[in-house]
Amino acid sequence: MTFIKDLDLTANELDHSPLIKSITINMEPPSLKDNTGLSERICRAVEEAAGIAVGGFPLILIRNLNRIVSDTSFSVWVAYRIENGTARLVDGRRRREAGPLYGLAVDIGSSTLALSLVDLDRPKVLDQISLENPQIEYGADILARAHFAETADGLETLTRILRQKINEGISQLCDRNSLKPEQILAASLAGNTAMTHFLLGLPTSSIIREPYVPVINRPRDLTAGDLELIISPAAPAMILPNKGAYFGGDLMAGLVSTGFNRAEKPCLMVDVGTNAEVVLGQKDWLIGAAGAAGPALEGGVARMGMIAGPGAIDRIRVDRESLTVDYRTIGGLPPKGICGSGLIDLLAELFLSGAIDFAGKLTLSPGHGRRVETDEGPAFAVVPADETDGGIPLLFSEVEIDVMLRSKAAMYTILETITRSVGLEFDQIDRFFVAGAFGQFIDPRMAVSVGMLPDIPLDRYQPVGNSSLKGTILTLVSEKARQAVQDVWKRLTYLELNVNQDLMNRFSAARFIPHTHRELFPSVEAALK
Amino acid sequence: MTFIKDLDLTANELDHSPLIKSITINMEPPSLKDNTGLSERICRAVEEAAGIAVGGFPLILIRNLNRIVSDTSFSVWVAYRIENGTARLVDGRRRREAGPLYGLAVDIGSSTLALSLVDLDRPKVLDQISLENPQIEYGADILARAHFAETADGLETLTRILRQKINEGISQLCDRNSLKPEQILAASLAGNTAMTHFLLGLPTSSIIREPYVPVINRPRDLTAGDLELIISPAAPAMILPNKGAYFGGDLMAGLVSTGFNRAEKPCLMVDVGTNAEVVLGQKDWLIGAAGAAGPALEGGVARMGMIAGPGAIDRIRVDRESLTVDYRTIGGLPPKGICGSGLIDLLAELFLSGAIDFAGKLTLSPGHGRRVETDEGPAFAVVPADETDGGIPLLFSEVEIDVMLRSKAAMYTILETITRSVGLEFDQIDRFFVAGAFGQFIDPRMAVSVGMLPDIPLDRYQPVGNSSLKGTILTLVSEKARQAVQDVWKRLTYLELNVNQDLMNRFSAARFIPHTHRELFPSVEAALK
Repeated sequence: MTFIKDLDLTANELDHSPLIKSITINMEPPSLKDNTGLSERICRAVEEAAGIAVGGFPLILIRNLNRIVSDTSFSVWVAYRIENGTARLVDGRRRREAGPLYGLAVDIGSSTLALSLVDLDRPKVLDQISLENPQIEYGADILARAHFAETADGLETLTRILRQKINEGISQLCDRNSLKPEQILAASLAGNTAMTHFLLGLPTSSIIREPYVPVINRPRDLTAGDLELIISPAAPAMILPNKGAYFGGDLMAGLVSTGFNRAEKPCLMVDVGTNAEVVLGQKDWLIGAAGAAGPALEGGVARMGMIAGPGAIDRIRVDRESLTVDYRTIGGLPPKGICGSGLIDLLAELFLSGAIDFAGKLTLSPGHGRRVETDEGPAFAVVPADETDGGIPLLFSEVEIDVMLRSKAAMYTILETITRSVGLEFDQIDRFFVAGAFGQFIDPRMAVSVGMLPDIPLDRYQPVGNSSLKGTILTLVSEKARQAVQDVWKRLTYLELNVNQDLMNRFSAARFIPHTHRELFPSVEAALK
Repeated sequence: MTFIKDLDLTANELDHSPLIKSITINMEPPSLKDNTGLSERICRAVEEAAGIAVGGFPLILIRNLNRIVSDTSFSVWVAYRIENGTARLVDGRRRREAGPLYGLAVDIGSSTLALSLVDLDRPKVLDQISLENPQIEYGADILARAHFAETADGLETLTRILRQKINEGISQLCDRNSLKPEQILAASLAGNTAMTHFLLGLPTSSIIREPYVPVINRPRDLTAGDLELIISPAAPAMILPNKGAYFGGDLMAGLVSTGFNRAEKPCLMVDVGTNAEVVLGQKDWLIGAAGAAGPALEGGVARMGMIAGPGAIDRIRVDRESLTVDYRTIGGLPPKGICGSGLIDLLAELFLSGAIDFAGKLTLSPGHGRRVETDEGPAFAVVPADETDGGIPLLFSEVEIDVMLRSKAAMYTILETITRSVGLEFDQIDRFFVAGAFGQFIDPRMAVSVGMLPDIPLDRYQPVGNSSLKGTILTLVSEKARQAVQDVWKRLTYLELNVNQDLMNRFSAARFIPHTHRELFPSVEAALK
């Protein structure tokens, strides 16, 4: 996971206004002349500082502050938040214990949880951690987990282990930064729609069934206590809003972090997971679509596919003449499998070297050193058994190639459909953001070569890493970012991809390498000459 | 306890706008064209109805409503409240289960808890119950309980048993009205400052020690869940604000229920408990004072004193010639003791019949049938042993008379001090409200006779019963009443009764019957002639 160093507030036209603020209150000791209670004094001070009424405070906070002022002095440090035009007290301490305001950003991926510890004052990301989503044990993908959630105690289990794992991450972050979890006074969390439902303990049955409706779009006014997080219990726990079953808050965060919502010319953003989520738009309008691209693009092809992790082949080159395979693994370890970017490289290189034809069929004659017959039909031998981690050769069969082709075709079809829906052509796209681990590792040239991404100038492709985590961090530190998320939420319209004959025709045409209509991919044509 | 029948909203210039509102939402079933989530639909409907944003909702509510809409129809009934310019969802049900909005008013007295079940729609008090404050076990008065609260687990105990007892009352009210406690969707609670601190689980140490400062003046934004009440957990639980250690929310409620805050001419209100709390003022200004009047006026004199309950003598007449005692007991039972109003009657009658002199000394010669010698000196025999419940004669000794005189003198001195502080004389007081059980039972003529209350025309005295409970009920049903409480809170200034020589002189002068300066009590003079 790339460490998010620079928050670029100014470059992103964002302000610095954290989700919580703090104030040090120096009070006159109470006297017979002024017998105003402690809570009233504190509220008054915050009301003066914030310019709005204090709507509430946790009783335990007032009780603790009461002990402090009677013990030592009449100075306290109070953190508060502003939401819906009302200030709410979050936490308070002895004045001398006042420290920076710490915040927590969490990106809840189906596979990976990413947590950032943020100093809200400077503002700066202090540390970052990633953990496996423990729900994987109950289902590799969202659909499986949503089904598990329908069994007895299923939902409760998914909610509990997810919250526990986030708390584990918080503990680790705090331990290595010499903090106590209670010192974290604000959280912002983003995830796909199902993940946030699991976090909230809400059922996902309606998400996975037509008409695919979430229970909740915009969670409001939650505290860490509501989510059983171990940070300060009254800390605001903002969960970014979803725009339907396939449009999670992670995507909203990503849009804001790319500055997509401020673009003057049309941009595309794609986030590849089990579903491909695509957004097209610019400053004035946003249109989104999502569709099943299959797990192939994330490395989920049978046998040798794997997610991008240690030992995964993430880059492949095939010698045009000898068909010798040159590969790189994550961590330089003996290969265990091939991740998504490696598979796209492989598909592109096999095509460009002529080892497979435009329909994905192996062209090598039986007996060729790279051709192996398997129970799935002929396969290309990528890595011989003696080089791999498990001592088993890594093979790429025609069946697996076909799965890849379907996935890349789905992706291209979605991109084509959404772009045409507003009367645009691909070459009018100014910037093309590729989000997620996928975007970080794939080589756009290869993705274009196989016809997964459109053939536009390569410099328009921009990997944006964990844009969701970055956007989530931004919502912790900037009111403009929080506002932008709400604006994006309101502006985004959803393009329902009705499976009609036209779409099926496009999909069929996209199932070849790079495409049935090769004129759509002039750069690939040129490379083949 | 008198049943509060009539809420007189119009007569009191109050509007009908309950603390919570409800709405029935008919939704189109979600479709591929409109995949808006359930919570968003509900929030949107409430936002349209209320004209302001929904700030939050309990997750459990959305979860439950989700089950309802999937099971039956897309109609739900939702209750919401408005606070600080934001709407918050409180509860929701199947549309066919929608019923009246029920509210709960609680007056937390040191001795007695009074609960009213209110139909907020009509609005109407449906039922009322009173229970003994279980904290009595840990201390008869506030001071004793506050000291107990400082022992290990003391505060926790006082909080727990108080909440439990309120819940017991709620159960009883619900049982006999065929309701479930969860059907109650709003609560308003008032009590003296210490009682509300106990309810909130906040320490009272600073309340009982100079400079007598509460921890909290205006509790904000609490729910039934915060107070562990068994009504609907997200129901707003409004606790009326206090204005210092001696000026509880009960008094604020009382002021509003009397219409005091709208009076065109100066009014006085007195609430007698362990402390005498006095408010003087009218529409534009309010001044309050409180002082220890001693428990005597509530019947807390040694031996034969008791609170107004079954078997208590609450009315006494003494024959001017024979000194025969004619008495009435509550419930018509054999007498167990004498309550506050009975004691004032007794003191007045003994004085008017000449059995005691203006200094409270018995004038009867030794050997007189009504004179008994006790270890507390001579005493007047009120009821012979064979007539009493316990078979022990009820006696009124000179020592006890002296305690009474000190109490009534304290009361008169407070009234005199506050009235003079604003340059008024008693005869300029337009109405004199006497609150509480005390006000309900005492005969103002008798209270004037002993010099406890000033000698103004008797028709200006107005008993207001449990004005605190009534005011608390009004805050449940009227926004204007809620506003009035806040206005009173802001406008009330506190007159600190500094114990100086002047006050002591006044107090000494008031320790006689009716007063050293008899010209202040012309009606008593006339009665003696």
